[in-house]
Amino acid sequence: MSDVLVRHDGAFTTITLNRPERRNALSRDFLLALTETFRREGATDARGIILAANGPVFSAGHDFADMAGASHADVRGLLQTCAELMRTIQSVPQVVVARVHALATAAGCQLVASCDLAVAAESAGFAAPGGKGGWFCHTPMVPISRAVGRKRAMEMALTGDIVDARTACEWGLINYAVPDGELEKATAELLRRATRGSARSKALGKQGLYAQFDRPEQDAYTYAIEVMAASSQTPEAQEGMNAFLEKRPPAWPA
Amino acid sequence: MSDVLVRHDGAFTTITLNRPERRNALSRDFLLALTETFRREGATDARGIILAANGPVFSAGHDFADMAGASHADVRGLLQTCAELMRTIQSVPQVVVARVHALATAAGCQLVASCDLAVAAESAGFAAPGGKGGWFCHTPMVPISRAVGRKRAMEMALTGDIVDARTACEWGLINYAVPDGELEKATAELLRRATRGSARSKALGKQGLYAQFDRPEQDAYTYAIEVMAASSQTPEAQEGMNAFLEKRPPAWPA
Amino acid sequence: MSDVLVRHDGAFTTITLNRPERRNALSRDFLLALTETFRREGATDARGIILAANGPVFSAGHDFADMAGASHADVRGLLQTCAELMRTIQSVPQVVVARVHALATAAGCQLVASCDLAVAAESAGFAAPGGKGGWFCHTPMVPISRAVGRKRAMEMALTGDIVDARTACEWGLINYAVPDGELEKATAELLRRATRGSARSKALGKQGLYAQFDRPEQDAYTYAIEVMAASSQTPEAQEGMNAFLEKRPPAWPA
Repeated sequence: MSDVLVRHDGAFTTITLNRPERRNALSRDFLLALTETFRREGATDARGIILAANGPVFSAGHDFADMAGASHADVRGLLQTCAELMRTIQSVPQVVVARVHALATAAGCQLVASCDLAVAAESAGFAAPGGKGGWFCHTPMVPISRAVGRKRAMEMALTGDIVDARTACEWGLINYAVPDGELEKATAELLRRATRGSARSKALGKQGLYAQFDRPEQDAYTYAIEVMAASSQTPEAQEGMNAFLEKRPPAWPA
Repeated sequence: MSDVLVRHDGAFTTITLNRPERRNALSRDFLLALTETFRREGATDARGIILAANGPVFSAGHDFADMAGASHADVRGLLQTCAELMRTIQSVPQVVVARVHALATAAGCQLVASCDLAVAAESAGFAAPGGKGGWFCHTPMVPISRAVGRKRAMEMALTGDIVDARTACEWGLINYAVPDGELEKATAELLRRATRGSARSKALGKQGLYAQFDRPEQDAYTYAIEVMAASSQTPEAQEGMNAFLEKRPPAWPA
Repeated sequence: MSDVLVRHDGAFTTITLNRPERRNALSRDFLLALTETFRREGATDARGIILAANGPVFSAGHDFADMAGASHADVRGLLQTCAELMRTIQSVPQVVVARVHALATAAGCQLVASCDLAVAAESAGFAAPGGKGGWFCHTPMVPISRAVGRKRAMEMALTGDIVDARTACEWGLINYAVPDGELEKATAELLRRATRGSARSKALGKQGLYAQFDRPEQDAYTYAIEVMAASSQTPEAQEGMNAFLEKRPPAWPA
């Protein structure tokens, strides 16, 4: 059985972490396989991708078996490989939603924070536990802190304790916390809502959003105006406007 | 009847979007008229400005009749005109509060996010629907994403669905969601609270806040220290301190 | 009795504002004494620092008796002294938690926002009241706005009104609002949770978090990867990983 399962279901692709016996720990090979899978599936016509996991936890983060005794250079390489997965998830044209059960910790929590959207079972929990050990969740906190804000980031990183799904939702780390039995359905429903309309326009929209988050507001406007003006010339933008004005359903160009 | 209504009521000015039959769509002429109105009213002695709307919705955003078939350059010009309105609202010395009923969508939602403060009726809703059509709300998401954070920005932009007023309040897009019958009163009350004290000091404070939001923390301190030190020398700052120390009400200089 | 009380209690140090008759107003001498105290206590082996206050309020902010009639240069110097205290709190290797009762206003609220973590009694309140007087809370809003987001920052700064502890917690200004009778216990418990693990790793983690908050996401990753790779080579990181892999409690090096 492969460590990464891929299922195609109409316009949606489900990528499943499948190292349950290792608590889906993100070893170097597993990170590379996931990145390769996202690149490959990102090149298909799929509209959306669900990132799910098999086993007792969503992901326990890095595999200490890889890291104990590793050199500075080897750890740097591993962390770069990990950040490359996060960046790839944000780079694919599809909408990517994490479907989280049980625990997502350290780089596993970073993985959730790096997906465009996230839904969790109410019994799920999130943690950046490095700081209560001998190291610290430096890289996981990069996307986590950008989602939850400063005081909450400090609390997660310094205490390392588990934040329950409902609190994670209030803090903006995830979009929905739902009863455990409704996790699959709620995730599919959010992805359905998030993938309507022209796929090409939405792919540009996703990249545009990420590109402007970190810019000062006026720089963000300069950028967003140009992207929006250029994309107004696409067949899909014109079709969307004409369909609206003509009160008919749009037909997206292939 | 003009597209933009202006009412003066003591220290407060109400600017009302009045194209109800067009759902207050932000055509080029309407954007220019609104910007001109904010500039003119911003130059008066008014202490605060309410941005309200007549008709079935607050504002439906851009007018597709302006945009369908328009060239890249024309759309760029229209979006620049739109961003100029947003910037003007943030540039006037008055406190500007949006009073939102029904729907504020796309550039209409951007308009709410660009006001200093916002109050909405509980039945109101907010959306950035471009992404579920053929285009994408690139420019509306600039101020919206800065208000609501990343995961919620992604959800609004990718799904395009309506966020109800109570949720918008929890997410920080607006300041209050109030029962529909209390909208006018609650907006006036917030504006009253937000306009006490010296108008000149508050005008500088408003600009200082916007100027420091996007800066790294230590740069923001360097800037804020200098503005605060300089403004300590104004007659109003001195009067405020002396009145406090002498336990008497302050009398602001004209 | 000194204006700044220091109590050592095992691994924790409590620094108490003790100018109750002046409502713990942050005069120049008091700011210097606090900064000196944080520097001195920051150089000890303590694991955590509680910042508390005696008297009817937590802190009323700057002392107008210092400021009325002061020159631009003198006010600048005072604000620099104040910002230096805020920076020192964030620079010490210990986890610093504010324990807030009653009111924290203006620079007093800035002080709370500048601590790594904060717990408040439910009856406590927070305000940036300068804007409803003759001046404006320019410098207090630097850390406050970074904690609460834009619309809430505008509301606090423009209205100057008191935000209750429960709301402050929802907005991310503090971590917990607890019943008044549980304030000491809840603060100690949060600090206990936040100070487990290797003190040296956590000190680096705290600085790493502050350093990356203001950077664009990819720059933050570049920085965090290097810090995390370098710190993987420390005895405490290695001990933490080995203890985990060997399923035994870790023993931190001295």
